[in-house]
Parts: sequence; structure tokens; C-alpha cells
Amino acid sequence: MEKLKPRTLSGFMELLPEKQSLMERMMEDLRRTYSLYGFAPLDTPIIEAAEILLAKGGGETEKQIYRFTKGNNDLALRFDLTVPLAKYVALNYGQLSFPFRRYQIGKVYRGERAQRGRFREFYQADIDIIGDGELNIINEAEIPAIIYRTFSTLGLKRFKIRVNNRKVLSGFFALLGLSQFIDNIMRAIDKLDKIGRDKVKELLIEEGVSQSTADEILDFISLSGSTEEKLARLEKYKGKNEILDKGLDELAAVCAYLPEFGVPEENFELDLTIARGLDYYTGTVYETTMTDYPEIGSVCSGGRYDDLAGYYTDRKLPGVGISIGLTRLFYVLDEQGLLSRELITAPADVLIIPMTENLGYAVSAATLLRNEGVRTQLYCENRKFKAKISYADKLGIPFVMFIGEDEISAGVVTVKDMATGVQVQETAAEAARRIRAKLAKKNAGKVISGA
Amino acid sequence: MEKLKPRTLSGFMELLPEKQSLMERMMEDLRRTYSLYGFAPLDTPIIEAAEILLAKGGGETEKQIYRFTKGNNDLALRFDLTVPLAKYVALNYGQLSFPFRRYQIGKVYRGERAQRGRFREFYQADIDIIGDGELNIINEAEIPAIIYRTFSTLGLKRFKIRVNNRKVLSGFFALLGLSQFIDNIMRAIDKLDKIGRDKVKELLIEEGVSQSTADEILDFISLSGSTEEKLARLEKYKGKNEILDKGLDELAAVCAYLPEFGVPEENFELDLTIARGLDYYTGTVYETTMTDYPEIGSVCSGGRYDDLAGYYTDRKLPGVGISIGLTRLFYVLDEQGLLSRELITAPADVLIIPMTENLGYAVSAATLLRNEGVRTQLYCENRKFKAKISYADKLGIPFVMFIGEDEISAGVVTVKDMATGVQVQETAAEAARRIRAKLAKKNAGKVISGA
Repeated sequence: MEKLKPRTLSGFMELLPEKQSLMERMMEDLRRTYSLYGFAPLDTPIIEAAEILLAKGGGETEKQIYRFTKGNNDLALRFDLTVPLAKYVALNYGQLSFPFRRYQIGKVYRGERAQRGRFREFYQADIDIIGDGELNIINEAEIPAIIYRTFSTLGLKRFKIRVNNRKVLSGFFALLGLSQFIDNIMRAIDKLDKIGRDKVKELLIEEGVSQSTADEILDFISLSGSTEEKLARLEKYKGKNEILDKGLDELAAVCAYLPEFGVPEENFELDLTIARGLDYYTGTVYETTMTDYPEIGSVCSGGRYDDLAGYYTDRKLPGVGISIGLTRLFYVLDEQGLLSRELITAPADVLIIPMTENLGYAVSAATLLRNEGVRTQLYCENRKFKAKISYADKLGIPFVMFIGEDEISAGVVTVKDMATGVQVQETAAEAARRIRAKLAKKNAGKVISGA
Repeated sequence: MEKLKPRTLSGFMELLPEKQSLMERMMEDLRRTYSLYGFAPLDTPIIEAAEILLAKGGGETEKQIYRFTKGNNDLALRFDLTVPLAKYVALNYGQLSFPFRRYQIGKVYRGERAQRGRFREFYQADIDIIGDGELNIINEAEIPAIIYRTFSTLGLKRFKIRVNNRKVLSGFFALLGLSQFIDNIMRAIDKLDKIGRDKVKELLIEEGVSQSTADEILDFISLSGSTEEKLARLEKYKGKNEILDKGLDELAAVCAYLPEFGVPEENFELDLTIARGLDYYTGTVYETTMTDYPEIGSVCSGGRYDDLAGYYTDRKLPGVGISIGLTRLFYVLDEQGLLSRELITAPADVLIIPMTENLGYAVSAATLLRNEGVRTQLYCENRKFKAKISYADKLGIPFVMFIGEDEISAGVVTVKDMATGVQVQETAAEAARRIRAKLAKKNAGKVISGA
């Protein structure tokens, strides 16, 4: 028979087992962290009616979407988790309790031009808090705590959660009579880090902003000092514009309980240069950057919006949410060598190698270990002894257990610690306890190391 | 703005949060169980090149598949997890260690006619053990242990793992000179439970089988007694046909270590009427039925095959695997009222209701609880006290924590157990410990109850 060349589509991540086990651990870390804040897991279909997904319509989304017909149905694959959430909440409004907190970790599809590090199928990990008519600002204040715990749990140390408030920006620019130029101004300001204050000022003047207004914008936007100092300096803008006042109050409220939420000062930054999707977000906005890898950009972003499901319902459903592009994050962590080499990525903790024909004793030992929560594989293939050891070695299985006539008659097992080479004879129950304790320490490690 | 009616496609399961939490728990149970046997988690794309998925081609599969083009690419959604596994193993052969044990829990797509309890998008939970050239029979013997632990962990008690061996069937029918009638004969035999021995005998005779051969078939196939007794009775067929002998040896080997594998006699049945996909399986085959719900059919099936990836590679990759149709299983369990009502399905363990303007103390308490692993939600919406309690009640949140001026000045919290109504004042740390201990007991419950 002629063989078909096996292949996986480009732009689709498919990991080898060792890497996959780290990815699984990341997802487990996320699930556990989100759960601590009262978020319910959700799972919506990957296929939806095209009209539902494209309610908003237009632009890049429509070009990138995977859309097709099946029978008479015009279908599409979801391109994010927000539109399906909007549909879900509108559809199930009467059966949900608000605020409705949900997390979803799921694959989404965008037919982008394939290039290194760009994926057409990728995981997003989203949380959202949806209010019914209104939503207390404390929910926005809680988001930095969730981001902080999420990345700390993953093992990231040097990162900053950058927070701004869209109302502060729109109020300030309204005050200066520049409302209609916000987009261009923000684009110029975005370059502050790269080209410096003077060059940005030139750009602003090119946009038609006066010398003095350009200075005012730059002073406003490039506040320095601690969060407290920044908030104090912003006080002087109060009382001049209603939206600006509202924004400053919200910003202060979001910063008010950071210590109580357990967010260290060094992982937080009030940053007025953060703008994000100007047409969607209406209040607090968030970005998260890795201190030593600014080129990666934001690894967790989101914000407050006023109207989640306006295309499907008249009910006002304000919310706040953040999203992690998990597949891309995993890819860049791997590229940068920041995935742990300490965590156990083997599919088993123990490989049992029986040395006798009758396997009863070895099978009993395996069952005992499994009952004790030790991940155990029996290896009974017809291979040389050396090949069996090399199998454990290659997979990174931390312990090998030998069971021969001597062990059986003594009622023990011989356990080899593959890292140290040390061999111990003990009962299977003792081995289970010892291995479990030893691995608990290793498994307490983090997925990300070195950043 | 005119509103679009929100809807989810028919044939696509989308659960409310309470049910979804049970589904998540089921998946977690499966992941944990599979891991105990040394299976590595795998995650392959949902979209593959159509030529890859349709290598085998033909029949129902091709009609049901979701296939579409994007740019110049002929794409399709996977309709099972076996074909992607075959591709994966062929593609990554050099980087895998054999036997390669993987589990995958993922969505697959089949455009079946929509009807109650039939899904077009559904989860399969698969495990497979792939050998390189050969695979020891002990791997086939281990599968009933995995099935037993899986369903026991889920909480199912009254179920039977039915095991047969394809070689026994083909050898026996070859012996009778009936090889080419196997399909029709097996179809007749399949009705034994429903129409009884006499009617089946009539059917066999209609198929051209003689009276005495029909009796021989029926005697052979409807063995009674314990597994040991059945194996003993099958001894008399030995030495007449090579394939039959091989099959009987394998069957005996699979049954040999059942007690050591921890599989109770009452959950196991050697059942010669089990045939399954005759063209694919070549050795041991498995089905799993719920004793009180025979109409549901097999909830976990699979078997041994000789050639996993023949369409993609010349290498002989024999394997054994089983699959659970998770979405359908969840659906029927729910329909039959067999999903636990005892497990906590609330998104939080504790709802904190602050009674003061300043939230610092309440936020600190929430952070402490979360540090201790207690899932905690702050509720600060502008609602009447009664509405807040009713929110906890509706969601099934087991504990509510009140924090007012009195609590703050005394350095305590007031915790109400929603099940008993009992209120306790204690420190937040004491509350965390007490709640955790209480919930650990509840969370040790099983997803399935009553079957």
C-alpha cells in the first residue's frame, strides 16, 4: 500500500509528551487559581452559527474566520471566547445568578497568515465577571490580584501588571478638546519607551497639537513615582471634567486595596499609556508584561466593558474580564528557555520491571502503588534489561522497581532512584510512601523558572 | 438596534454552570485515573488536512465529516481520536518511546442526524498503548483494571466489563468452516439476550448453518459459570485450530491476573458474544455495561489492533485501546438521575458579605482564605441583605461570611453554615481550616450515585 505522508497543519501546535505535560500543568494551575476567586468553569461549542459569531461583523475578524456550510447551516469556528460568552449569558440569562463569574480555557481559530509563533488554533484562558445592570468597582480591583496569583502560581516572578482607566484618558483628552484625535495621540504616546519624549512631542505636534498641549499630555501621561504618588499627582486634574473625575475615582478605588489583595507594589504599575481596544473597553484596562522580555508584549490583558451582549439582548450586562493567549505564552516561554527542567514530565513515577515469568506479585505491587496515588507502569516487553532501563531513562521516570525471585520470597521490592542510582529494598507499601513524599516536593515546583 | 436571537446549534452540548462543574469533575477523575497507569496526556489539533483524516476513506465517516476549504487547504474536523493518534505516532515515531501510552480527552465532530441524546460535537476520552513491532499481552490484561478503576472512581458500582478475544471467534468459525459467515452469525448471536436461544437457532439455520452446527455455536458462545469455569470448559476446543488456540491462550492470560489487578469477579465477564468492529480489532475486545441500564449499551469499549498507522507508515504498530463517549455518558447519567446531588457544584466555597464601607478587612480575609485553598467570592454589589443571602443559596455556596464593625474590632469573622443555619464567630484562619476540613469530606464524594 502506498503510504500517505503524515503531517500536522502549519499554525497548529502539537506537542511531544514531555512538553504537553508542562502545558497540562499550566492549564491545571490556571483552573485552580481561577477557582479560588469563585469563577465557574464553562465549556461552549467550538462551532456556532455564523450569524451569531459575526453579529458584530466586519474587519479582520470576518476575513480570518473559519466559516463553512454543512447541509443548510452556515457555520463558523469561534475566534474568541467573548462572543460565545455573550451568547451564553443572553441565552441563559434567567438561569444564571449575577454577578456571573466564569472562566473558560478553550481553543479558538483564526486563519492568520502562518508565521513562526503565530497560531491558527490556539488556547485562550479567559475570566469574566458579568453584572446585571451594574457591577461594583471592587470587581475591577480584584483583577490585578487574580493576575498576580495566576502568574506567581505559574512561577513567574519578574512581571508587572499595568493598569489604567479609559475614562481617565477620554476625560483628559476631552478637557484638552482633543477627543477626536485620541487614537492618533495614543499611537504616538505608545512609542514613548522606544523613541523618547522629544520625538513623541514632535509626533504630537505633527498631529496638530500645540507645543504647550503636547507638554501637558506628556506630563500627564508619563507620571513617575509609586502608585500612591501618582494618584496624588493626578489629584490636581480633578473637578475639571466629569468623565475624568469618574475615571480618577475608579483608578483610586482599584488601587485602594492592592496590599489587602496581596499584590506587591513591585508587580503593579499605574500606567496611563495603556489604552487597549478603545471602542470596547470603558473603564479599567489591564496589561501584563514580563520585565525581562518586553518584546513579548502583554501576556494577559483585558478590561472593563459596559455592554457584553448588546447584539443579543436589551439587558445591560456590564463586565470585566482578562484573557491569556495560552498557546502563544507557552510557545514564547519555551523559546526563551523559561520552562522548568525540574518538574517531572514523565508519564509515570515508577516503572516496574518484573524479572520472573509469573507476574502476580508485580501486578499486586503495581495495584498497591496506584491505590496510593503513585503513577505506575508495568514494563513487560520482551527487551534486554539495558533497554528497559534506558526506556525509564529516556522518559525521565524517576524510580524503577525490580521484582525477581529474591524479592518475591522476601516479600519486598527493589527500588532504584534513577537520579542518584541508589537502590533500596523495602515493602511495596513503604516504597509507595517514600516515593510519594519525594515526588510531592518535586511536584511542588513551578512551570516557569528563570523569569 | 435590532437584536439577534441567541442560540446554540442543536446537537451541541452546552451546560449550565452547575452541571458543567460535574462534567469537569468527571474529566478530572478520568485524567487522574489514566495517569495512574502511566498514560501521557496528548492534545492534537481539532482541524487536520482532509486527506489525513480520510486516509481510510469511505462509508458513514465520509458523509458525516465536517469538511471545508480555507484558502487552498482542504480541511476537516477530526471525527475520532484514533486517526489523529495514528498520524501523531507515525509523524513523531523517532521521538517517542515504545510502548507509548497516551490518553486524550477531546472533542470530535460528526454531522449525524440530530436527535435526542445524539451529539454532533462530543468528547471522547481515549487511552491507547502502542507497541513498536510487538506488544506484550499483559497490556491487554491491564485494560480491565483501568476500566474498573475509572468507573469506580466516577462512583459507578453496578457495571460489568465484558471481555472476549477476536481470535477465539475467528478460530472457532474457521474450525466450523464458517469463516465467511462470521458477520451474519455474530449479528444473529447478538440477539441472544433479547429473543432467546431457540429464535437465534432459527436465524442461524436460515443463514445456512446446519442444526448440529447451530447447537455447537450456541453451546460455545453461551458459556455459563465463573470466569475460571468458562476457561476450563473452553479447554476442550484446544488443539483443533491454531488461531483458536492462540485466542484461548490470550484470553486466559488476560484473565490470569484479574485479582492482582484489583478487578472484582462481579465486575468482570468473559463474554464470547462480544465481537465489535470485526475488521479493525484482532485480539482482546472490551465492552462495559451498566447492570441496571442495559438499554444504554456499552459505555466504554475497545480492543486490541495489529496495525495502528498502516496508512502513514510501514512500521508495524500494534496497540490496544479503549474509548469512553463522555458527552453521551454524561447525558444519559443526567437523564437517569444518576448524577450526584451531594457534590458541591457552586463556584465558591465561601461568599464574603462585607457590611462596612471600607473593604480592607474583608479583602484581607478573602486573600487569607484563598491562600489556604478555600474558593472565595467577595460580594459587594448594591443589593439588599436578603438578596445577597439568596445569591449564595441559589448558587449552593456552602458558607457565607459576614464582616461588620463588630467583627473587625474583635478581629474575627462570622461564618454561617448554609446547610445547618449555624453561625460561628472565629478568626479567618480558623474559619479557613474548619471550612476546608468540612468540604474535603463533601468533595470526596463521587460524581455518579445510585448505580
